Amino acid sequence: MSSPISPLAPKSIPDMPAIAGVRLATAAAGIRYPDRTDVMLAVFDDGTSVAGVFTRSKCPSAPVEWCRARLKSARARALVVNSGNANAFTGKSGREACAFTAKLAAAAVGCKTTEVFLASTGVIGEPLPAQAFDGVLSKLAIEATANGYTDAAGAIMTTDTFPKLATAQARLGGASVTINGFAKGAGMIAPDMGTMLAFIFTDAPIAAPALQTLLREGVVDTFNAVTIDGDTSTSDTLLAFATGAARGAPRIARAHDPRLLPFRKAFNAVLANLAEQVARDGEGARKLVEITVDGAVSKPSARRIALSIANSPLVKTAIAGEDANWGRVVMAVGKAGEPADRDRLSIWFNGIRVAHKGARDPAYDEAVVSTAMKKPEIALKVALGLGKGRDRVLTCDLTKEYVAINGDYRS
Amino acid sequence: MSSPISPLAPKSIPDMPAIAGVRLATAAAGIRYPDRTDVMLAVFDDGTSVAGVFTRSKCPSAPVEWCRARLKSARARALVVNSGNANAFTGKSGREACAFTAKLAAAAVGCKTTEVFLASTGVIGEPLPAQAFDGVLSKLAIEATANGYTDAAGAIMTTDTFPKLATAQARLGGASVTINGFAKGAGMIAPDMGTMLAFIFTDAPIAAPALQTLLREGVVDTFNAVTIDGDTSTSDTLLAFATGAARGAPRIARAHDPRLLPFRKAFNAVLANLAEQVARDGEGARKLVEITVDGAVSKPSARRIALSIANSPLVKTAIAGEDANWGRVVMAVGKAGEPADRDRLSIWFNGIRVAHKGARDPAYDEAVVSTAMKKPEIALKVALGLGKGRDRVLTCDLTKEYVAINGDYRS
Repeated sequence: MSSPISPLAPKSIPDMPAIAGVRLATAAAGIRYPDRTDVMLAVFDDGTSVAGVFTRSKCPSAPVEWCRARLKSARARALVVNSGNANAFTGKSGREACAFTAKLAAAAVGCKTTEVFLASTGVIGEPLPAQAFDGVLSKLAIEATANGYTDAAGAIMTTDTFPKLATAQARLGGASVTINGFAKGAGMIAPDMGTMLAFIFTDAPIAAPALQTLLREGVVDTFNAVTIDGDTSTSDTLLAFATGAARGAPRIARAHDPRLLPFRKAFNAVLANLAEQVARDGEGARKLVEITVDGAVSKPSARRIALSIANSPLVKTAIAGEDANWGRVVMAVGKAGEPADRDRLSIWFNGIRVAHKGARDPAYDEAVVSTAMKKPEIALKVALGLGKGRDRVLTCDLTKEYVAINGDYRS
Repeated sequence: MSSPISPLAPKSIPDMPAIAGVRLATAAAGIRYPDRTDVMLAVFDDGTSVAGVFTRSKCPSAPVEWCRARLKSARARALVVNSGNANAFTGKSGREACAFTAKLAAAAVGCKTTEVFLASTGVIGEPLPAQAFDGVLSKLAIEATANGYTDAAGAIMTTDTFPKLATAQARLGGASVTINGFAKGAGMIAPDMGTMLAFIFTDAPIAAPALQTLLREGVVDTFNAVTIDGDTSTSDTLLAFATGAARGAPRIARAHDPRLLPFRKAFNAVLANLAEQVARDGEGARKLVEITVDGAVSKPSARRIALSIANSPLVKTAIAGEDANWGRVVMAVGKAGEPADRDRLSIWFNGIRVAHKGARDPAYDEAVVSTAMKKPEIALKVALGLGKGRDRVLTCDLTKEYVAINGDYRS
C-alpha cells in the first residue's frame, strides 16, 4: 500500500550534517518485499554511550526486550533496524532472530553482541527471517558513510508517507556539537504493523546515565505528548547514541550539569520536531491538532484531560468535518475523570473563544469559526479555571481514510 | 439526518404488556423540529419507588443533576423525557429549564416537583425551550395509557435507527410481576448529541433502596459492559420505577431477599437485552462484537483488558475489514496496563483459535478464518492463562459510516 504524501508534511527535508563517530548504510534484504530498502546499519566509534526509552506495552516485541537488556552495558557499537517485519509476538524464534542478527552485526563491525542494538517494524506475528541479513550486514559495515541519514530514514519507513529527519547544533563548553535524528510513524500506524521508532545521534561526550536522564525527561513533552489513535505499539523504541567525538567538548557525567543547558534545549527541539512530524503523518490525517489545557489542578491532570480530548473519536471526527464542536470537547473533559467545573470552562478553536463559563460564547459567530476550522492546523485550547496546571499534546483528525487504511486492506 | 435501520437490529419489536400503575403518552412539542414526536410523559401511581444510575462525567447535564438530587426522596410520580435538546452545558438556564419542566409536570399530574424525574437528549449547549412543554404536559397526563411503551421508545430516539424495547415476567412470592424497559442509543452517539437513556418499569413492590442496589449491581455486566467509541456522554441516565401495584406480591425491602432471585434474573435480562440493542445500533455498525477475556488475574483486570480491546480503533477497523488481526488484539492487551504474559496468550475469532502461546496458531487456516469473519456477529476471545478472572463486553466495529455520521454533517 502506498499513500500520497501527507498534506501536513514539512515543506522540505533538512540537510543532515555528518556526526563524527557515526556511519550509516542501507540495503534491500528482501525481508518482506523484493528490491525494497528494508535494513539500515549504523556503526559507532568505540566509546559511544547509549540510552533508550521503550513502549510501556506488557507485550513488547523481541527487539525491545533485547535493547532493554543491552542498556545495562551502556555502550553501543552498532544499530540494526529493519522494516517489513516487527519481530513481535514471535516467541522463542523472535529471541533467536535477535541473537542471530546481533551476531552478524558484531562480526561485521568487530564488537561484542552486547554492543549491538536492534529495532524492527512491520508485520506482527511472522517470524523474522534474520538469515536474510547474512552477508548484508558485513557489506553495510564497509559501505557505511557519515552522510547516510536520509537513506536510513527512508529504509525504516512502513506506511509513513515521508521520511522524518531533524538536526540541530548546540554549544557545549567551548565546542559546537551536533544532534541528528530520524523517526518513523506513530503508534500502531499501519496494516498489521506496529511501531514508532526514533534514533538520535550526537558527537557530544555525554555519559550514558546522563544521556538516559536527558532522554527520559525529554520525551515527556515530545514523543509522549503525541497520540494518533490512542493505540500503543508493541515496538515503540527511542534510542540516543553519543559518540563523544566532538573536539574540545567537555565530558558530561550528570544530566543537570549547567554546561549542558544549551545542548538539552537543542536535544529537546530535535525530539519535539520529530514527534511533530510523526503527528503530521498520522494515518489519513488532514489536520494537525494541538490541544492545550490550562487552569487544571496540576500538569498531570492537564495532560490526562488533553489526552482524553486528543483520543476522543468524536472530537477527532468533528475536526475532520471542520466543525468547532465544543460540546464534544466538554464531553471529553467530563470523561477524563479529572477535576473540572462545567461552569468555569472556556474553549477556543484557533484563538476564537466558542464557549465561556459553561455555555456558548455570547459573541459566537458561526461564519468566523467556520473559516478558522478550514485551516490545516487547529489549535484547540481549553481553560478550566481551577489552578495553574498546563499541558499540551499533539494529535491529528480522524478521517474516513484512517478507516480505509486500517480496515480496507483485506478487501 | 436519518439512516437506514441497522443491519444488526432485532428481527422484531416485542409486544409490551401493561404494567399496573404506569401510563405513558407522547407528543410533538417542537423542541428542535416541527411535527416530530419529541417528548414523552410517564405517570406513576402514588407509592412508586425509584432508583437511578448516571454518567460518571464531571460535566453532567442539568437533568442528570436534577435526578440525582430527587433520588433522595425515593418517590416518583412522573417522568418527562425529551429529544432534540440535551440541556447539557447550558448553565443557569439549564437548571431553570429543569425546574420549569418539573413544575408543569407536577401541575399536570398532581404531585410535588420533587416527584418529577427528567431526562433530555439532543444538541448540547443550546438552551432547552422548556416553555414548549406548557399546555403539552397537561394534555399528555390526560391522554396517558398503559400501552404507550412503543411510542415512548420512539419519542426519545435521536439518531437511533430503531426503537429499543424489552419485557420480561417473573415470579415474586406467589404473584407474577412484569418488567418493561426501553432505551436509546449508546455513548456519545450522534451529531452534537450526547446521551444513552434507559427506563425500566415494574409493578413489583420493591423499596427504593433495594431497587437502587438491584440497579447498581445490574448495570455492571450490562450497560457498563457496552462501549461504542469509548466516549462518555454528559447525559447517560438509567432510571427504574417500581409501582408496587402487582396483586399478591410481597413487599421487598432488601435487594438480597431470597424471594427476589427470579425477579433479579429477569430484571438483569431486560437490562442486558437493552444494552445489547444499544450496541447493535452503534453508529455505522456492521458487526456486533462480543469480547470475552478469561484467565486474567481478576474480573476487574479482565474488564480493563476487554475494554482496551473494545475501544481500540485498530481492532475495530480490522473487524470492519473482516480481518482476524490478532496482532492488534495483542497490542490492545499490551496497552491495557494489566498483567499479561505474551507467551501464554491465546486468541479466538468465532471459535477459531488464531494465536496460541505467543505466536500464530500452527493450525491457522486463512480461508476458514476469512469465512468466519464475514458473519455479522463476531465473538473475540482472549485467554491470558494467568488466573481465573473473566469478563465480557459488547461493542461494534468502526466503519467509514461512523466517521461520516460524526464528521460529515457540516459539509
